[in-house]
Amino acid sequence: MQPITDAMDLFRHQRAVRDWSDRPVTDDDLRIVLQAALHAPSGSNTQPWRFVVVRDQAVKDAISDEYEAAQTGDSAAPAARQPSGSGTLSRAPVLIVPCVQVPARTGRAGFQTGASVYPACQNLMLAARAVGLGTVMTTRHRIRRAQIHAILRIPEGYDTAAIIPLGWPDRAYGPNRRAPLDEFLVYDRWPE
Amino acid sequence: MQPITDAMDLFRHQRAVRDWSDRPVTDDDLRIVLQAALHAPSGSNTQPWRFVVVRDQAVKDAISDEYEAAQTGDSAAPAARQPSGSGTLSRAPVLIVPCVQVPARTGRAGFQTGASVYPACQNLMLAARAVGLGTVMTTRHRIRRAQIHAILRIPEGYDTAAIIPLGWPDRAYGPNRRAPLDEFLVYDRWPE
Repeated sequence: MQPITDAMDLFRHQRAVRDWSDRPVTDDDLRIVLQAALHAPSGSNTQPWRFVVVRDQAVKDAISDEYEAAQTGDSAAPAARQPSGSGTLSRAPVLIVPCVQVPARTGRAGFQTGASVYPACQNLMLAARAVGLGTVMTTRHRIRRAQIHAILRIPEGYDTAAIIPLGWPDRAYGPNRRAPLDEFLVYDRWPE
Repeated sequence: MQPITDAMDLFRHQRAVRDWSDRPVTDDDLRIVLQAALHAPSGSNTQPWRFVVVRDQAVKDAISDEYEAAQTGDSAAPAARQPSGSGTLSRAPVLIVPCVQVPARTGRAGFQTGASVYPACQNLMLAARAVGLGTVMTTRHRIRRAQIHAILRIPEGYDTAAIIPLGWPDRAYGPNRRAPLDEFLVYDRWPE
């Protein structure tokens, strides 16, 4: 994908990318997109996040196997299924797992908790798009949350918001398409 | 605030703006930022959102009064408190209330539901910053969610993700500041 330099062009060029070229993702590439994530807003500017950056193939394979099981609803152990390492998340050069601190008051991540981590995820994906990297955000892993938290050793007090595979895209992608804006707008209050 | 045209400059220039100049926000201004919201990703690309755009001063005042009550933990009826129309949300030229469809399976918005609406909120705020508009995202309204849903006539099946006041900022704002990136990174799996 061509880089995007104009700020207002960025939004309509974000696409879900699930196939990557062999071009390596450098640590500098990664730091650019992670730095963008850090600049996102969060509740009371607490920045309650951590980003797990997975390059280790064995860890990617283990996550991918659980993810594929979540996709298919398969309750068998990973070893009993398809060959390990064949899933989308195995093939991604890097997986980024944004984590958020769980509110102490409730002990669990709720709807509003997302306001303190999904803007950071979006910054990360937009910055990736700006430099020409491809990503996609999935939350499907949460169906096998316990297994994936065990693999990544996510500590008590944190929850995983998403898994974001990242790499140089396999091909060019056009702009995204949306229905007309007015279909999504309500003025002042919802009509009775 | 000066507009930002470079995509990679955008992230570090987003600031929370809570005071606005008298410059009117035009419908064209609004459509630019709302269009950016629409281009955000959502789970399975369902785009399960609506944006309530509030310009009516009486509606803004009613929301603001409830919001101020939520801030102070005041359980009295709004009429018993400070003069109506004095709060931050009353003074904003426009309030945008992003709403999201509640998953049918659970009947309520959960952590993951946020993955389908907070990226859109972030696009909206970034696009606002790009053109020089100021915003801030608050979820504090949820403490008085029932009252605010009644004012806006939010239908069953939708929940309100945030209230985002929007206007031309009262002054210039510098870049945001963050702790060093490495404080937020974990490699491959959390250390034991």
